[in-house]
Order: sequence, then C-alpha cells, then structure tokens
Amino acid sequence: MGNELPRSPLAPVQLEQLAPIAGVTLAVAETGMKYKGRPDLLLCLFDEGTSVAGVFTRSKAPSAPVDWCRKHLNSGSARALLVNAGNANAFTGRHGERAVQSCAKALGRVVGCSPEAVFLASTGVIGEVLLTEPIVSCLEELADKADQEPWADAATAIMTTDTFAKTAHASARIGGKKVRINGIVKGSGMIAPDMATMLGFLFTDADIAPDVLQAVLSSAIETTFNATTVDSDTSTSDTVMAFATGRAGNERIASVHDDGLRGFQRAVTKVCRELSHLVVRDGEGASKFIAIDVRGAENDGAARRIGFSIANSPLVKTAIAGEDANWGRVVMAVGKSGEAADRDKLSIWIGGIKVASRGAVDKNYAENQVVPHMRGQEIDIRVDVGVGKGRAVVWTCDLTHGYISINADYRS
Amino acid sequence: MGNELPRSPLAPVQLEQLAPIAGVTLAVAETGMKYKGRPDLLLCLFDEGTSVAGVFTRSKAPSAPVDWCRKHLNSGSARALLVNAGNANAFTGRHGERAVQSCAKALGRVVGCSPEAVFLASTGVIGEVLLTEPIVSCLEELADKADQEPWADAATAIMTTDTFAKTAHASARIGGKKVRINGIVKGSGMIAPDMATMLGFLFTDADIAPDVLQAVLSSAIETTFNATTVDSDTSTSDTVMAFATGRAGNERIASVHDDGLRGFQRAVTKVCRELSHLVVRDGEGASKFIAIDVRGAENDGAARRIGFSIANSPLVKTAIAGEDANWGRVVMAVGKSGEAADRDKLSIWIGGIKVASRGAVDKNYAENQVVPHMRGQEIDIRVDVGVGKGRAVVWTCDLTHGYISINADYRS
Repeated sequence: MGNELPRSPLAPVQLEQLAPIAGVTLAVAETGMKYKGRPDLLLCLFDEGTSVAGVFTRSKAPSAPVDWCRKHLNSGSARALLVNAGNANAFTGRHGERAVQSCAKALGRVVGCSPEAVFLASTGVIGEVLLTEPIVSCLEELADKADQEPWADAATAIMTTDTFAKTAHASARIGGKKVRINGIVKGSGMIAPDMATMLGFLFTDADIAPDVLQAVLSSAIETTFNATTVDSDTSTSDTVMAFATGRAGNERIASVHDDGLRGFQRAVTKVCRELSHLVVRDGEGASKFIAIDVRGAENDGAARRIGFSIANSPLVKTAIAGEDANWGRVVMAVGKSGEAADRDKLSIWIGGIKVASRGAVDKNYAENQVVPHMRGQEIDIRVDVGVGKGRAVVWTCDLTHGYISINADYRS
Repeated sequence: MGNELPRSPLAPVQLEQLAPIAGVTLAVAETGMKYKGRPDLLLCLFDEGTSVAGVFTRSKAPSAPVDWCRKHLNSGSARALLVNAGNANAFTGRHGERAVQSCAKALGRVVGCSPEAVFLASTGVIGEVLLTEPIVSCLEELADKADQEPWADAATAIMTTDTFAKTAHASARIGGKKVRINGIVKGSGMIAPDMATMLGFLFTDADIAPDVLQAVLSSAIETTFNATTVDSDTSTSDTVMAFATGRAGNERIASVHDDGLRGFQRAVTKVCRELSHLVVRDGEGASKFIAIDVRGAENDGAARRIGFSIANSPLVKTAIAGEDANWGRVVMAVGKSGEAADRDKLSIWIGGIKVASRGAVDKNYAENQVVPHMRGQEIDIRVDVGVGKGRAVVWTCDLTHGYISINADYRS
C-alpha cells in the first residue's frame, strides 16, 4: 500500500514547509502494526486553554474514534491528539470502544490531563480489531520527544494509500496581531462530500472561543472539503478538526460577530481549500484535476447537486481520462441530477471554449479547439443550466485504470 | 463499438428464441449511418386497436424522441414503432424535434396512419444531429418486408455497445385464453434506476386497455429495471414501452381490479426482470453479476436506497472485481446511504456465509470460507441493517478495467 504506489502526477513539486505554531508540539513513531519502515502514529500536544472544533462523517456507521470525538467535543478544550494509520478501528463493536477508551486513558496519564481532553483519529482497514498495546507502549517516548518542528513527519505519519504528504498554511491579522494556521491532511480514495476517508487537522495560535472556532471551521468546510469528490464513497472515519492554542496574543474572539473574524475565516478557508484540493490531486489513479463550475441553477444547493452529479459520473470521469471532450455526457449528468435545468438554454464551456449553447452543439465549435486543453492536467468545465442564479464549484479527478488496480487489490 | 467488443462472460449461452405475436410484424435495415455490416434500424408494425404504454427517463434533458413519445402516449394507441441505433438524437435542439417529426410523418404516410400513432426511440451518441434521409428512404422497403419472424434481428438492430442481443418471453392465461409476451432490450452502460441508456420493448397479444397496460408496466418496472444499476449514470433516452395488439381473443381487461390481471402482471414482471438482468450481465466490462438483498430497513424505500448505495459504490464494485470479500466497504456504503441503520445490529452475509454480525466481524467467520463464492460469476450479498422490516433487492455488476477501456475511448 501507500509507499509502493508511484507519486501522483498531480502532486505539487514539493511539500509546503510549515513553521512552528506556538503551543503545539508533535512527535511520530513507527508501531510496525501494518506498515514497515515508516511512521504510522502521530501525537500532537497542546498548551492548556486550547480550543477545539470538529466536523465528522455523516455515515450512519461511524468509527469508534469518531463517536469518541463527537462526544467530547462539547467541553471545547483539548490537550492532545493521537492519530494512527493502517487500522480504522471502524465496525469493531465493543472492542473498538474499549480500544479508544484505553488509548485516551493512557495518553491522559502521560500528559497529565483527563481522557476527555484527548482526541483520537484512526484510518485504514475497516473491521479489524485495533490492538492498543503497540500504541500505548509508544506514548511516553512520544510525549518526551514532542517538539515544534516535525510537521513534515506529522503529515507523513497519517498517510495510508496517499502517494504524497499534504500540508498547507496561511496567516491573518486579528486586531493587529498576526495569527498563523497550519494544516495537514490525508486521503486519496473513498473521498466524497461529508468527509470521506479523510483526516484533516488545522492548528492555529489564534485566541478564539470553541464555539466561534466551530462556526469558522464548519463554514470553511462547506465550500472546500464538502465540495470535492474522488469516487462518491464516504468513509466511516472522516474527520476534520481544528485546534487553537491562543498563544498569538490577540484579543480573544468570543463572538461570531467579531470584526476580527473576517480575515481569520478567509485564512482558514484557504487552508481547507488547499488541503482538500491536495486530496483530490492524490485521488486514486488520478491523472487530471477537474474543476466544475455550475451557474444558472435554481439556487446554490441545486448548483452543487448538479456539480456533484457531473463530478461523480463514471462516464464523465472516464471520458476525461480518455482526453475526450464528450460534452454529451455532461448533458446526461445534468439531466440525471434531478435538479431544474432548461435543456433548451443549457450551455457548456470546456477550457473556456463554448461547446454547447441553447440545447445544441455551438455553431462555432470545432472539436480540435479543446484538444490542447483536454491533453493538460487541469480540466475546467463550466455549465449554465439557464434557470436561475444559483452557483457552485466542485472539484474532482478522472477515473482511470489506476483506480481499478489500486482498489481491486487493496487488502490482497 | 459493439461488434468489436468480446461477448460478456456473463452472457447466456444462447439467445432465447421468440415465437410470433399475433398482430406484430417486424423488419430491420442497415442504414450505414454509423455501423457497417449490421442492422441499425428496426420497424415494428401493429394491427389497428393496439394499446400502448410507456415509462421514460426522469432526466431533465430528455431526448427528442422521448419528448415525442410522452406527448403522444395519451392517445393510448399505436400503429408503428421505429428505433435507430448509433445516434441518440438527444441535445440536438430544434433539429432534433424536426427529425422526429419528419420520421413520424414519413412513416405515417407509409403505414397509412397519423404521425401521432408512430412511436420513436433513438440510442447512441448524444449531441449529434440525426440525419433523417437515410432512415426515411428505408421505410417503404421495411414496411413491405415486415413479417412475424425476425425477433432475433430486431434484438440485434437496437444494439449499441451491447455485446449480445437480449430477448425474453412469458405467457399467462386471461379468462382461459393464453396470452403471450415477447420482450427485447438494449443497454450495457449508463445504466441506473429510472431508465438508463436502455431501450426495452414488450409486445403482447393480450386485449387490454391502455391505462391498465400502463399500470401493469409501471408496476413491473419498479422491482426490475428500476432495481438495477451498472454505473449509476442515467441517460437522456431511457425508454420502456409495451404494445398490446388484442389479438389473443381474451375478454378485454378494462380495469386494474380485473381478476384476470394477476397472471398477466406476473408474466410482464418476469419478462422485465429477465430483460433487466440481461442488461446488467452486459454491463460494460462486467465480470460478476451481483445481487444485493437488503433487509431490516425502516421501509422498502430505505432498503432500496441502501441497496443502491452498495451497488453504486466504486469501492464495493472494485473489491468484487478483485474477488475480495471486503465487507468493510459494504459497511461504508450502508453508512453513507443516509438511511437509518443500527451499526451495532448490522449483519452481512456473502454467498450465504455470515461474515459480520452485531457491528463486528462474526466470530465464526474465516475469510477462506467465502473464497470459492467470490471466485464465481454470481455474487450474493445480504445485509440486515437491524432497524425495521423494509426489504429490497437490487442488481448490479462489478467495476473492472474493461469499463475504463470501453468508456475512455467511446468516441475516439
């Protein structure tokens, strides 16, 4: 898995380096439980007073760590985050619950906090019992060596089938004080709205109340993580969490109406957007990054559903893999979305070239106009469905032989 | 296309031969518009007094022939059906409407009926203008040579990417009189509920009022065509129509409460089930036929949506292609359906072997138990979601390299 796959052709040339965030220290370990010769366990420690927020899978069969985090998010404060890769601890019944409890208790003892201040995330195979001993036995050493530097190691330790580590950062000003945001994420398949097999973590030194942090995170996710899809599959473990240490020294933001929030919201949204796009760029077998801009829908929600109908269509995705500007399949996908669209006003652009207008092929369109665009790695599709002012952009990748090869042999 | 692809490994050993239906004559032609050396145009002629019913795509961008058929179905009577393969006449704007009108008028003249008694269906590429001259010029010859025999030719003439011709038949008794039903269908990709790229036609000698025929057909489709999926894509052209000539001599069925209807309904459902399964067996690149039986859901609709969530999951479909009994992906797909399910009561059987019970792997399950089943061509998955009495069965096929190969090069 993971390490054996070639790096995605859509990966950035190099990893975005992350500077320290005051109040956050990190360490990674190799438990050897599933992977050999690479870290698979990440510990993050937070200063006292750190606010926490989270958004989790809408799956009706969530993993044990997701249950745990949801339950303890209400307290609003966090002292530690522990992430393991290789075993999702999902659909493991009472064993799963017990594994979560014993990890949280053990880590609480090491850190000197209550188990409820420990947050957990697991990713990997579903349905296998998670052995806690290899994890628990690492905790003291991890806590001892935790420091502010190893962000690249942290991004690597949470990978599963990912072919590259994923980081992003941004900064903003709150009342004259600079605050910084670091983000790491993992995910490459089972990616769809509502937090697919994807774990993302944001860390900031901003001083912000937990409920405001939650509002900022939820809002950012709507147009970023929840606007991307690789294969329409949603995992049992999807998690995006944000931790704010308050060490930047800004005046604490205690209300969503605070003026200082605007720049911070923009910065958090930027980090979420970059992280979510990195996940799509590592989509299993992906060879093209596809942006789908839907306009003229009844409302923004309708535009988004049309966008996902296009983005999740196997026929659209395979056509793009074949570098075929098959706009007929885009029409099909608009039609099947079930949302209002006026066939006789429908227009489609590919790479900025108008290929269809008013319900038929555009009279000035010649297929060779879009050939250079289709051969590139970044594909732009724009659709106007001609009934209103709703708009949404969604992102996806193509569907290739690589996806089949990876997923027909995942466990074998 | 079509002819060049190897026959699906899931195809029946031989074509089900169809006997004549009194009141129906058929003829096929090669227009040469898209395919060479094979028929691509089908004409069916019906005796006066033939009842007609139809169910069409729910696409918001339906093809011109679908618009035409919907509009003229109200009359309830049909004299002719004309089907062409290779060009869907979809998303062709006013050209499309005009093409439909001129074909219907020309055929009306040849047959001696009003254009409104002529029904049309087209399948193939979307967005290319349909030239009517090659079709219209064949009509006289087709009408002259039409006879009761060439059912196999009819099933062949409507194929596009199909790798084998598809027929089914059944009979029933209505008040002591035997009535017969023949069916033909085409479709192999863009197959999902609500009538994907699929054209199906049923022909019977039963004497039955159009509104009753419509009720029988709509009911049959619910648990057959609308319970199958290949790739979740729904086409702009999906059509299932039924024609009843009334030549069997049974007492005319004029009400849905007629006792004589029960056997006829069963027979129509059987033909629809067989035809819909043949389409799945010809799913693009399919190597496994998969039945998914969902029980214990809140209601039948919820069971069906859970079934489709499993059936359309690329991760489930690729796991089955890889002969991997990856029930964790089934859990994931149940979870993402959004329907009520009790994770801690969820049970899963594969090939009759219980693999998961009460929210965890079954304690008696060993992976090698299901290996022989996974190696076979017929895969059975049963899921009990533990919340109610809703039940549904849906059918699909696996997702293989073959699907990618076929669809990444469709037009090139």
